[in-house]
Amino acid sequence: MTGPDKEKRGPRAMGQENEVRAGEVVVEPPSPTDAGLVFVGRVRTPWRTRAEAPRQGQPDGPVCRLEIFDPWKPALQGLERYESIEVIYWLHLSRRDIVRQVPKSSGSSHGTFALRSPVRPNPIGTSIVKLVGIEGSTVLVRGLDCLDETPLLDIKPIRCQFASAPKGDGETG
Amino acid sequence: MTGPDKEKRGPRAMGQENEVRAGEVVVEPPSPTDAGLVFVGRVRTPWRTRAEAPRQGQPDGPVCRLEIFDPWKPALQGLERYESIEVIYWLHLSRRDIVRQVPKSSGSSHGTFALRSPVRPNPIGTSIVKLVGIEGSTVLVRGLDCLDETPLLDIKPIRCQFASAPKGDGETG
Repeated sequence: MTGPDKEKRGPRAMGQENEVRAGEVVVEPPSPTDAGLVFVGRVRTPWRTRAEAPRQGQPDGPVCRLEIFDPWKPALQGLERYESIEVIYWLHLSRRDIVRQVPKSSGSSHGTFALRSPVRPNPIGTSIVKLVGIEGSTVLVRGLDCLDETPLLDIKPIRCQFASAPKGDGETG
Repeated sequence: MTGPDKEKRGPRAMGQENEVRAGEVVVEPPSPTDAGLVFVGRVRTPWRTRAEAPRQGQPDGPVCRLEIFDPWKPALQGLERYESIEVIYWLHLSRRDIVRQVPKSSGSSHGTFALRSPVRPNPIGTSIVKLVGIEGSTVLVRGLDCLDETPLLDIKPIRCQFASAPKGDGETG
């Protein structure tokens, strides 16, 4: 693809691919102004390109770092009591205008809501990861698969642990 | 709380509570302009107030509806093959400026990232729910706990099912 089309379409995903594949459907999306996000931190991982990153995080994968920005650092208090946490992040390189996609590993077209592709109307990534430790305002985890410098949106205890008492005490809401 | 403070602080959560409790810490948050969201649909549930809603969704709870807006309806294609899906939504009534909270059920203060409270810097809700069926552009599910009219951000297959072949065929990416 060359010329103005390329600029209009932008990166396919993770800065790796620009093309729309045969069988894919692109739409003119509404302006993403229904609500606004604030990046509460930054994810540091060993992977600089999609080709390097694992397709799915593994519990025994490398330790990755969630660096929390001001003024959110006090929000970490008590997180150390959990063994597994949910990490929510923003897949900032993904295009957002494809409603049917043809995954590389597949010859056929699927709706975006039936895939976990990073290409989606709101490119929000969610992962359940193992909490390794907390050092100051940095959270160490295993099990991520996202690129280095991915913006962080949120951290939460996972619900099944949250419903019962965490280790240490029972005082959660 | 009365007067200008009330307006400044806005609703505590789900339009139910305005106060900041003893032991809670409020910050002046950065403007939420790092990225923008588009509402891809609307969640319909039986619950109009937080007091009515369950604290946590149940797999045998009532059927709730995810109504998908244009132009995203084609993105549902293939979703019917999954038994469980992840629903991501926007907790639009929540305040976003509290970094330490005192849950009602607890007398003690916890960091926001150590709670699943709707009050958070980016009030994004995530739930794993049972897929009951799809009728046109409406997805029927069980297991939600959010309020009626909650804005919908995304739907995804859950990762553990996604890693293996879904029922029907193996062609996912």
